[in-house]
Amino acid sequence: MKKILRVDMANLTVGTEDVSHEYAGLGGRALSSTIVSKEVPPTCDPIGSHNKLIIAPGLLSGTGAPCSGRLSIGAKSPLTGGIKESNVGGTASPKLAALGIAAMVVEGQPPDDKFYVLRISNDTYSLEEAGDLAGLGNYDACERLHQRLKGKLSIICIGQAGEMRLAGASVAVTDMEGLPNRHAGRGGMGAFMGSKGLKAIVIDDSGPRVVHPEKKQEFARTAREFSKDLREGTGFLEQLRTCGTPGGIPNFNAFGTLPTRNFSAGCFEHADKIQGAAIVEIAKSRGAKMHGCTPTCPIRCSIVYHDKAHKFLVGGVEYETVALLGSNLLIHDIDAICRMNRLLNDCGLDTIETGAALGVAMEADYIKFGDSESAIELIEEVAQGTIRGRMIGSGAVVTGKMLGVKRVPAVKGQAVPAHIPQSNKIVGVTYCTSPMGADHTAGVTYDDTIHKPEGKVEKSRAVQIQMGFIDSLGLCMFSRACPGYNDYVSTLMAALYGTPYSEADLTELGKRVLRTEREFNVRAGFTAAHDRLPEFMTEIKIKPHDLAFDVPYEEVDRFYDEI
Amino acid sequence: MKKILRVDMANLTVGTEDVSHEYAGLGGRALSSTIVSKEVPPTCDPIGSHNKLIIAPGLLSGTGAPCSGRLSIGAKSPLTGGIKESNVGGTASPKLAALGIAAMVVEGQPPDDKFYVLRISNDTYSLEEAGDLAGLGNYDACERLHQRLKGKLSIICIGQAGEMRLAGASVAVTDMEGLPNRHAGRGGMGAFMGSKGLKAIVIDDSGPRVVHPEKKQEFARTAREFSKDLREGTGFLEQLRTCGTPGGIPNFNAFGTLPTRNFSAGCFEHADKIQGAAIVEIAKSRGAKMHGCTPTCPIRCSIVYHDKAHKFLVGGVEYETVALLGSNLLIHDIDAICRMNRLLNDCGLDTIETGAALGVAMEADYIKFGDSESAIELIEEVAQGTIRGRMIGSGAVVTGKMLGVKRVPAVKGQAVPAHIPQSNKIVGVTYCTSPMGADHTAGVTYDDTIHKPEGKVEKSRAVQIQMGFIDSLGLCMFSRACPGYNDYVSTLMAALYGTPYSEADLTELGKRVLRTEREFNVRAGFTAAHDRLPEFMTEIKIKPHDLAFDVPYEEVDRFYDEI
Repeated sequence: MKKILRVDMANLTVGTEDVSHEYAGLGGRALSSTIVSKEVPPTCDPIGSHNKLIIAPGLLSGTGAPCSGRLSIGAKSPLTGGIKESNVGGTASPKLAALGIAAMVVEGQPPDDKFYVLRISNDTYSLEEAGDLAGLGNYDACERLHQRLKGKLSIICIGQAGEMRLAGASVAVTDMEGLPNRHAGRGGMGAFMGSKGLKAIVIDDSGPRVVHPEKKQEFARTAREFSKDLREGTGFLEQLRTCGTPGGIPNFNAFGTLPTRNFSAGCFEHADKIQGAAIVEIAKSRGAKMHGCTPTCPIRCSIVYHDKAHKFLVGGVEYETVALLGSNLLIHDIDAICRMNRLLNDCGLDTIETGAALGVAMEADYIKFGDSESAIELIEEVAQGTIRGRMIGSGAVVTGKMLGVKRVPAVKGQAVPAHIPQSNKIVGVTYCTSPMGADHTAGVTYDDTIHKPEGKVEKSRAVQIQMGFIDSLGLCMFSRACPGYNDYVSTLMAALYGTPYSEADLTELGKRVLRTEREFNVRAGFTAAHDRLPEFMTEIKIKPHDLAFDVPYEEVDRFYDEI
Repeated sequence: MKKILRVDMANLTVGTEDVSHEYAGLGGRALSSTIVSKEVPPTCDPIGSHNKLIIAPGLLSGTGAPCSGRLSIGAKSPLTGGIKESNVGGTASPKLAALGIAAMVVEGQPPDDKFYVLRISNDTYSLEEAGDLAGLGNYDACERLHQRLKGKLSIICIGQAGEMRLAGASVAVTDMEGLPNRHAGRGGMGAFMGSKGLKAIVIDDSGPRVVHPEKKQEFARTAREFSKDLREGTGFLEQLRTCGTPGGIPNFNAFGTLPTRNFSAGCFEHADKIQGAAIVEIAKSRGAKMHGCTPTCPIRCSIVYHDKAHKFLVGGVEYETVALLGSNLLIHDIDAICRMNRLLNDCGLDTIETGAALGVAMEADYIKFGDSESAIELIEEVAQGTIRGRMIGSGAVVTGKMLGVKRVPAVKGQAVPAHIPQSNKIVGVTYCTSPMGADHTAGVTYDDTIHKPEGKVEKSRAVQIQMGFIDSLGLCMFSRACPGYNDYVSTLMAALYGTPYSEADLTELGKRVLRTEREFNVRAGFTAAHDRLPEFMTEIKIKPHDLAFDVPYEEVDRFYDEI
């Protein structure tokens, strides 16, 4: 029987309960969004005591299924004011699942201003004062925790940005090397974890645990075949394997979807210098290898990067980070981009939100486009808590307000990621309609029609539904590049439960997620008026294809008619 | 025939047009809100090119009727994202009315980043580059304009905060001494005027002009009687006359509605030191006199204040300013409060919004409660454009986000003024329901039931309707303290037009204003979820009467049922 862990920060107690009827059969995003919808008052203060932090492994997490190690972190977002599920890799999801934990629900706020560490060790749970961990960056905090608490630890933690409750703050999860390289970046979940007084969650699952599917052999066989196809896949999968997620840069640059100079263009003259192949080449020359972000990954698209002295700098150099901190700022020095990435991972800030905030600051001429040194200095100030640092850490919208900037790339208060909607109109519809605000992981796809406005609502709807079940099962969004994907996934689910599970069930799960989230947002005060891109994205045509977002909003407003 | 002035900042042209059928018979807030509603796309970017700045004198402005010199400044608010009418005294309203201008509509944005001055001289209009006026504070800018352009000038202008498009920025209007002491403070109208590239509007109406009522004698007789009653009134009117608006402090302190220590209490141990009588005593001892904020005012409640060297410091020391910068910050040094007031008038920031932002900064311990020197330093940095200054200038919500503060007194993004809703539940309902966000001028009233939750929706509705017509007629909100008020006003309106005008007509005008504004906000994406006070105001009982706001939100949500 799976259980829900209730962490009461007001009384500093931890309890467990059986998964109730209304939460049964749900996992990942479906569970986190359902709990938020049922238990969080939609109009509550996002950093107040009524909001709840939900941490839920996907339904397939812990089963050993390929790419099944994703974790959902949910709450009412401090950044958007709407519902949020922020999805992250690392080692925590399979461990929580293996411990039988369907979800952790962190409630209330501590009576003092102290920070705490939650320890989960098999069946024992404890809350301890964070002591000297408070004020540390993620890397130092995790290092000290590893030193003090031996074992196969997985750590979920926040840096100084989360402690300061900055709206751009992320939640870090340690990877297979034990380092806090994976981040639930979007939506300010770190700020909210900070508002709960929770510095870190340490999970120790020493002992041979695993989630056992009902039909073991069928599950294992399907998982093996699925894994093989992912590992040996060509095209996009091969590109991921060899060049990581920044491997897409040449294509995005050609499509005109690479954010450049604060989203004022979709192509970058130095795109070749920041593309995946170039990064991997430098990384390899310094002795670093690519790795997987979760134990079950056969793709292994995460680029580890060392500095010029061949010392570890950062793990998981991702496309979004490279684009937002690179082309978006007219910076093409990979070492500088990775230095920023490291600093942001350390203080615990979303690289997308912060990259967009820096772009806005450059638009205001507060620092110059291309000036990586000033950008690095500004990021360094976040951990110090200066007002300059806090501005950047509060995200693109706050930075734009303070600097009086009109070109602020954000929807529902959240910065637009690195697939720009002027040129990819499918993701443009996603940015408008997703309950998450501008979030490519809510539903991005590419085909040769992306430049045209016709039929984009249907395509966005299809991929958003797909992401709804992918995020609920704990699968990586890239796994869907595998041929026969829905068959593999429904077969795995059927074998897991020992009951029929069809592609239609997956679709219904995805729709249910979107309905639940939309309904919460409606109660929180969102209307069609919020399903809009910033004005400049519809009014100013940009290079290289002279495009603006032009899907009619009347069509966009029919998105939920068929959910 | 009255005209509309169209100022096209994109092409730098000024034109006039007759008042169209749909705007006929409207003035002040009724006209500004109707034009915004008809001409501004509700989901547009508040500092983008589609928003329009409306400046409209009240229907009685320029007639010589007592207290009729108020001006309405309207737009979609950069602070709240909803419709805004910010109301201000000074000399501009009667002049614009006397020139036959029903409203100015400022549209578009200049192609460059330059600032301009609009000159209105009888029937000629011109736009000129602001040149060396850009970057100046309001006092210096007005002094230079007076030196260069002789005549009976009235100036509407912005300081550095408006130029920087900070969301707390005000629009200043010169008073009878020619000084920019009167401010349309709420809603960030200064930021929006700055986004239009408009530094100042200079109105020269040399020549004997006046608005002529249809029934002159009846109008004049009624105006005389009304004026006499206002001038000789007892009770609240006498208090205004002798102690200015801060004369209410002893009462508010006793009622528990005086914001203290960032709205965490409703009474202040040093209330006696900041009350009107104390301020007036110091002011008089330094040779300053009370004056009226507009030419037609028989009350003259505006306190002029000189510094210790008996040199002019600030005019119009108002209750809201004294409370937000005084008790709210635990500061009781009147000289320090007036120094802050002067600095805010000069850089052009709303004293309410900025006082609340400083309270939030003190709550975060960024500066200490009671530390007036640090508060003054922070305000001084606004004009310098530092990031610290910009934070405070961006208002309470942005300051709260950057400093991670939970107790942020704001509704719909706008800071709560100095009648706290925990203890005055009528104004609490107004803060929830007014399309303006938290704004006492939208409808505040006191009676001996304010502590109880019953019947407050009806009382707020009545006073909000009354303020709807008062703001449309260009009357001062304090004039309604006159006995027989509605009779006087409807008689004046009947004499102005030469047609019957009843109290019911006034009520219908007030309701029409609220309906128009609410409907705009609905289209802009506001719902009942936004008609809420910050959580702490309903959850934490405060001193001195152990009260929290407890009017049920189901009742609050029925506010518009009878509008």
